[in-house]
Amino acid sequence: MSKAAGCRGFLHHVFDYETAKTLVIPHFGVGIVFRFTQLLVVLYVVGYVCVVQKGYQETDSVISTVTTKVKGFAYTNTSDMDPRMWDVADYVIPPQGDSSFFILTNLVVTPEQTQSHCPEVSIRTGLCENFSTTVKTCEVFSWCPLEVDTRLPKKALLAAAENFTVLIKNSITYPKFNFHGRNILPHVNSSYLAHCEFNRLTDPDCPIFRLKRIISEAEADFQEMAVKGGILGILIDWSCDLDWWAGKCLPKYSFRRLDSQNQDNDVAPGYNFRFAKFYKRADGVEERTLIKAYGIRFEVIVFGTAGKFGIVPAIVNLGAALSFLSLVCKKKKYYIKSKSGDAQNLTVANIFIRCPLLQTGLC
Amino acid sequence: MSKAAGCRGFLHHVFDYETAKTLVIPHFGVGIVFRFTQLLVVLYVVGYVCVVQKGYQETDSVISTVTTKVKGFAYTNTSDMDPRMWDVADYVIPPQGDSSFFILTNLVVTPEQTQSHCPEVSIRTGLCENFSTTVKTCEVFSWCPLEVDTRLPKKALLAAAENFTVLIKNSITYPKFNFHGRNILPHVNSSYLAHCEFNRLTDPDCPIFRLKRIISEAEADFQEMAVKGGILGILIDWSCDLDWWAGKCLPKYSFRRLDSQNQDNDVAPGYNFRFAKFYKRADGVEERTLIKAYGIRFEVIVFGTAGKFGIVPAIVNLGAALSFLSLVCKKKKYYIKSKSGDAQNLTVANIFIRCPLLQTGLC
Amino acid sequence: MSKAAGCRGFLHHVFDYETAKTLVIPHFGVGIVFRFTQLLVVLYVVGYVCVVQKGYQETDSVISTVTTKVKGFAYTNTSDMDPRMWDVADYVIPPQGDSSFFILTNLVVTPEQTQSHCPEVSIRTGLCENFSTTVKTCEVFSWCPLEVDTRLPKKALLAAAENFTVLIKNSITYPKFNFHGRNILPHVNSSYLAHCEFNRLTDPDCPIFRLKRIISEAEADFQEMAVKGGILGILIDWSCDLDWWAGKCLPKYSFRRLDSQNQDNDVAPGYNFRFAKFYKRADGVEERTLIKAYGIRFEVIVFGTAGKFGIVPAIVNLGAALSFLSLVCKKKKYYIKSKSGDAQNLTVANIFIRCPLLQTGLC
Repeated sequence: MSKAAGCRGFLHHVFDYETAKTLVIPHFGVGIVFRFTQLLVVLYVVGYVCVVQKGYQETDSVISTVTTKVKGFAYTNTSDMDPRMWDVADYVIPPQGDSSFFILTNLVVTPEQTQSHCPEVSIRTGLCENFSTTVKTCEVFSWCPLEVDTRLPKKALLAAAENFTVLIKNSITYPKFNFHGRNILPHVNSSYLAHCEFNRLTDPDCPIFRLKRIISEAEADFQEMAVKGGILGILIDWSCDLDWWAGKCLPKYSFRRLDSQNQDNDVAPGYNFRFAKFYKRADGVEERTLIKAYGIRFEVIVFGTAGKFGIVPAIVNLGAALSFLSLVCKKKKYYIKSKSGDAQNLTVANIFIRCPLLQTGLC
Repeated sequence: MSKAAGCRGFLHHVFDYETAKTLVIPHFGVGIVFRFTQLLVVLYVVGYVCVVQKGYQETDSVISTVTTKVKGFAYTNTSDMDPRMWDVADYVIPPQGDSSFFILTNLVVTPEQTQSHCPEVSIRTGLCENFSTTVKTCEVFSWCPLEVDTRLPKKALLAAAENFTVLIKNSITYPKFNFHGRNILPHVNSSYLAHCEFNRLTDPDCPIFRLKRIISEAEADFQEMAVKGGILGILIDWSCDLDWWAGKCLPKYSFRRLDSQNQDNDVAPGYNFRFAKFYKRADGVEERTLIKAYGIRFEVIVFGTAGKFGIVPAIVNLGAALSFLSLVCKKKKYYIKSKSGDAQNLTVANIFIRCPLLQTGLC
Repeated sequence: MSKAAGCRGFLHHVFDYETAKTLVIPHFGVGIVFRFTQLLVVLYVVGYVCVVQKGYQETDSVISTVTTKVKGFAYTNTSDMDPRMWDVADYVIPPQGDSSFFILTNLVVTPEQTQSHCPEVSIRTGLCENFSTTVKTCEVFSWCPLEVDTRLPKKALLAAAENFTVLIKNSITYPKFNFHGRNILPHVNSSYLAHCEFNRLTDPDCPIFRLKRIISEAEADFQEMAVKGGILGILIDWSCDLDWWAGKCLPKYSFRRLDSQNQDNDVAPGYNFRFAKFYKRADGVEERTLIKAYGIRFEVIVFGTAGKFGIVPAIVNLGAALSFLSLVCKKKKYYIKSKSGDAQNLTVANIFIRCPLLQTGLC
């Protein structure tokens, strides 16, 4: 072939406009079924994929920072202990106001322990050193006297802790969308904050929570939880739709007991830990007060996914839906008799009419 | 029908090759428009979806561990307090070098508190116990003497803290891609680390940060923040492209003030908390020093998403783009006059030429 | 045109059923190739996208809470220190049983420090105050005597820590799927928990871990790590398939050393921090014991992604795959001779037979 002819062939190949020949079947019944099925699929695409599932959105995960501040006093006066007033420096551990904080509600105190020898409380462990024939247990070198942790009060010592309040300050950001939010909303001012208390009906925007209330919202009982301790989650959900047509992005609070409530398969039901206060005697001997602290650990857990319109996910979801729309047709063996207007001069005795996707053989 | 005929019919059905009949329209003008629109869509797919948005990639979220170590000394000598040298064991709370650490910059000290009775500082709360007629306030049982927290110094006591430095060690992993990274890069050796200081221009790889510098990068003033405290975020972004053709995966540092700078709607502007040091007197009475600590809490926040080529997202994005490419054609009512070569012997008076997707009726 | 004719034209447009005309080529060889290629693509879609990559699933990230409880005693008796028994209140920092906890294994103790003047240990820093001609170093005002941290024992003081055990309690939730899980499985009861110890072969469900074992699983040596400290990650992977046909959702434990093992480019290899215990002398002077604590920091890192069948991702992946299936055909210039049955009466001299997608010109 000459070059000119080859060139012209190439140009034809590139610049010819090709489109599929379609066969139009003017049959009202088939058409109704066809259009109705199309409508269902379009409703699915628009209604479910777009509106409900928001398939057209890009997403981002939340980055958060939380500070907490507990307020409240408790007075105790028992036979075991001197009268005592407890404030935040006594019962909040650790004191820094992190997202995770523990409030002491019950305890076993073993004061004036020193490094010395003393009889063990029992012979369970079988570790014996200087065994004494007159004493029925082993003698150990330890912080003495040993702790007797069966003396746990049956009613929480700091039962008054149920009336303590905690102020939670939470700042979040969605870096991909450059969105910043705070749980202390713009309309909340100092005078409101000085007196308010969170209440889902009357004060849903107040970031000060009374412990008794949030524990009951978690369907737990404060006094029952306070005896042997537990863990309460304060969940702040910042899932938002950040498109301009959606509403404001606000946090949603919920409360959930996080430790096991099934006491059967728990080594140490509840929540407790031991810590010590160290002192020095006048003679230079180190002394400590061992405290087995039971209480409620509060964990402020912030989570959330933000969505915003994104070209790529929109195209992907729409493209996938379009592929499915083209599935909507049925294999028919159709005999076309010559009808008015359309498709004249095409007399076919046995045309297999298939969906475009039947090229793939899927239908 | 006989079995043989049925069998042959089935074989024909399975092994016949079906493809759509297309009508070729050798019209240059239409062809130009058609190809140009195709080019736009291809540029979008390749340029935007692939290169910019990296739609072909699988993603994974970062798992991180951080340790910190502060260095620095401060000397104070005020009328309220004895001359004192402060080191890390005095001003870093907690001392363990976690990702979140507090540096004390200002404080109100109430020493030698014991559990006893004393007059309240004011009658705000209205909680009165043994009311004394000669004293104009109520008497309370508490840690006495009570704290007077209005005595906060107007200038930060540990103003020298601005020159402290913090070494941040950060290890990350992307488990899905089995990728591990550290912010202390391979080329950074001990001698460099012993003297360097982070500087975006001259020393961007040094993981030792001077507090004054990072707070000014966050567009805040150290001395102003140090009076009533605040929260500073040290953000480490490990978002990376892990494909072999992309560059190295390196961390990107940024600094942001996380607490509210709008003082109007804040109960307790800044950041502070109370803690106590407990002592025992010679007579066995427990004594404590209450400290209301103001300072800057630093939070090292590590985040990031890694992307790497994945077959599934590549197919999904490409497939969706292909569906859109096939949208590129227009509904035309076309009268074909007999032209050279193509489509001979097809004389049609009124062929509706539609895009493949017009079967769906969308165009 | 009259209204009736226009109306009828519209009705025809809406309710006519259009489908592509396909050309059936009864060629066995082409058919075989075509069907085989289709089979490959279908296998890819079903086998890889669906089964391996689970492309049809929606995903969610895990929200987790962890508590830990260490058990164990250690006895030390060195020339530097009095005989001492160490329990959890002595060596676990912080004591609250968080997901991140430090176990002291080695230390440098500087007791009885007070705020006073003393000679510096060296003249490295060059900070001199009252320089004395008879003393070859500078005098400083500091917590005196100064720490001499070169006296670190070459063998870990609390070498016995390798036999300590830690009970890890972990609750997780996938909020999108309302799934809750605990690492203490339902079949694990109190009596089992009282004595068991994690072992991958014999006791994979026991949540009590011996430190020596988990550090060796991380391919590290406890005694070597205990001298200068280190960081160990206890990773709990909750990645699960939550569909009803998948198995139970169980946690997978793994252990990894997180600090740098390459000692060359590390300012302070290992892991250590300084803290103090504060005392008051009889004369009211504040005294402290400075402890430079070396040890192993354990970080319980919980991560995971859950997948569950979702309509939207299923549609998207399937739709994309369908688009690719329709790519499976080849451009052919085909001359149809009149064959039996199909496509009678269509005599075409030069029909370009193209794939549906050839309208786009991609093939």
